[in-house]
Amino acid sequence: MHVTIDQAEKAIAAARRKAVELGTQMCIAVVDSGGVLKAFHRMDDAWVGSIDISMKKARTAVFFGMPTGEIGKLSQPGGPLYGIEHSNDGLITFPGGLPIVDKEGVMIGAIGVSGSAVENDHAVALAGVATLGVGELPAHPWRT
Amino acid sequence: MHVTIDQAEKAIAAARRKAVELGTQMCIAVVDSGGVLKAFHRMDDAWVGSIDISMKKARTAVFFGMPTGEIGKLSQPGGPLYGIEHSNDGLITFPGGLPIVDKEGVMIGAIGVSGSAVENDHAVALAGVATLGVGELPAHPWRT
Amino acid sequence: MHVTIDQAEKAIAAARRKAVELGTQMCIAVVDSGGVLKAFHRMDDAWVGSIDISMKKARTAVFFGMPTGEIGKLSQPGGPLYGIEHSNDGLITFPGGLPIVDKEGVMIGAIGVSGSAVENDHAVALAGVATLGVGELPAHPWRT
Amino acid sequence: MHVTIDQAEKAIAAARRKAVELGTQMCIAVVDSGGVLKAFHRMDDAWVGSIDISMKKARTAVFFGMPTGEIGKLSQPGGPLYGIEHSNDGLITFPGGLPIVDKEGVMIGAIGVSGSAVENDHAVALAGVATLGVGELPAHPWRT
Repeated sequence: MHVTIDQAEKAIAAARRKAVELGTQMCIAVVDSGGVLKAFHRMDDAWVGSIDISMKKARTAVFFGMPTGEIGKLSQPGGPLYGIEHSNDGLITFPGGLPIVDKEGVMIGAIGVSGSAVENDHAVALAGVATLGVGELPAHPWRT
Repeated sequence: MHVTIDQAEKAIAAARRKAVELGTQMCIAVVDSGGVLKAFHRMDDAWVGSIDISMKKARTAVFFGMPTGEIGKLSQPGGPLYGIEHSNDGLITFPGGLPIVDKEGVMIGAIGVSGSAVENDHAVALAGVATLGVGELPAHPWRT
Repeated sequence: MHVTIDQAEKAIAAARRKAVELGTQMCIAVVDSGGVLKAFHRMDDAWVGSIDISMKKARTAVFFGMPTGEIGKLSQPGGPLYGIEHSNDGLITFPGGLPIVDKEGVMIGAIGVSGSAVENDHAVALAGVATLGVGELPAHPWRT
Repeated sequence: MHVTIDQAEKAIAAARRKAVELGTQMCIAVVDSGGVLKAFHRMDDAWVGSIDISMKKARTAVFFGMPTGEIGKLSQPGGPLYGIEHSNDGLITFPGGLPIVDKEGVMIGAIGVSGSAVENDHAVALAGVATLGVGELPAHPWRT
C-alpha cells in the first residue's frame, strides 16, 4: 500500500505551514512504502544541501520502519549498528525522518525534512505525518 | 534568478491537469536555473522508471538552455553531440524537458515530464511552462 | 502487490530448469513491483557480467511495465526513446526482462535473465514468468 | 574455489528456517570467494533497507576473511581500522556476516544476514554456514 499523490501533497502542505510557523526554510520529501520518491518541495531559501538529506531521511525511515533518530541512537560508536550509514547509498540517522503509518497500522510511506535544527526538522516532519496517521509503527512485522 | 516554490507548484498543477486531460500518469520535475531540484510530483500509477527520467529531462533542458528534443537531434550517431548523454551523470535528450523562461527573457528553471509517449510528455511540459512564461530562449547568451 | 519469496523461488526454479534444458548458464533476478530485488540466483559458470545485466533487465521491465526488448525497439538511433538507457543508473533494453503479471492483471514484479544469446535469455525468463502468470500487461494504467 | 549454487541454496534454506524459528524476517545474501553475489533471498516483510546491508555484510566478511563483527571492533573511533567502512563502496562491520570455510579449510564464500537485532542476524548467518562448514578461518593466509 503506497501513499497517494493527494496524501503526499496534504502532508507536504501541513509540513510547510509548520515550517513557516517556526520561521524556517525546509526541504520536504515524501517516499512510498518501497522508499521511492513520491513528492518533494524545496522552500525558497532552503539549504541546497538539504535536498539530499531530506530524501535520505525519508528513505531511511521507510527502510527500517522507524524514526531516523531511533536508528541514530543505535549507530553511535560502540553501538550495535555503528556504521550503518554506509549502506543503501547513504543513510541519514539523525531526527527529521518519520514513517507514515495510516489508521489501519499500515506503513504507506515516510516523510523526511531537512533545513534547520534537528528539533525543528522533526517537528515539521511530525506536522506532515499527523495529517495522514502516526509516525510510529506497531511491532514488526508491519504491513505495507 | 530562480523559480520560486509557488511558481513551481503552479507549473506542476497545470501540468497535472493536462496529464489528466490526456488520460496519462506522469512524473513531473521542476529544477531551478542551476539545475537543482525544486519540486517533484509522481502521479498515482505513473511508471517508476519515469521519476529519474523526468528529473534528467529538466536538468538537461536547463543545462543547455533548450528543449531536450533539440539536443536529441544533435546527439544521434554521426551528429555533432553524439554521446553527450554520458555527461552530467546522464542526460535525457528526447522530448519532455523544457526551459522555463519568464516574461523578461530570464531562464528561471526548467520542467521535465515523463510517463507516456514523448508527444504527450512534451505537451504536459508545455502546459506547465505556459503558466510562467515560454519554453524557448532568446539567443544565447541568456540570463539566469 | 508484491511477488512473494515463495513465488520468486518458484519462478527461478522453473527458469533454471529451462536454462539447463537449453544447455546454458544464467543469472536470474526477480524484483518486486517497485523494482526492488526479491531473489537472485547465479548458476555455476554463468558470466559474472550477467549479474548486473539480469538485475537491470528485471528493473527495466518493471519500471516501464513492458518486456525489455519492446523498449529497445524504441530506443534505437532516431527512435523516440533514443538514449533512455542513461536513466535510472542504467537500463538494459534488449530481450530477457519481462514483467510478471498475475491472474488478476496485477504486475507483481519482473524477472530478468542474462547469460546466453538474447533469444535464450528471453525463453528462460518466459519459463519463469509462466509459473506465476503472463509477461504482458493489459493497457496502462495497470495496478501494482 | 567458489561456493556452488546448490551449496548457496542449501545455506539460504537453513538460514531461512532459523529466521522463521526466531520469528524474524531476513535478507540473506551469499557471495563467492571473490565477493561476487551468488544468491539472494528477501523474506516477505523484511526491511527493504536490509537488502544492501546483507550483501555488504557478505562482501565485508569475504573481503577480509573474518566475521563482520570482528572488523567492527577494530574500526571504532581510535581503533586501528577507523573509517574502513568508506572503502569498497561501503562496508558493514557489525555482526551478521560470516565467511564460509569448507571442510578442507578453504574459504568458498560468505553469507550476510540483515533484518533484526544483530544477535539474530548473526545466529541466522551461523545456521547457514553450518550446512557447509564453519565461519572462522584458520590463520591467514587462507586458500580461496
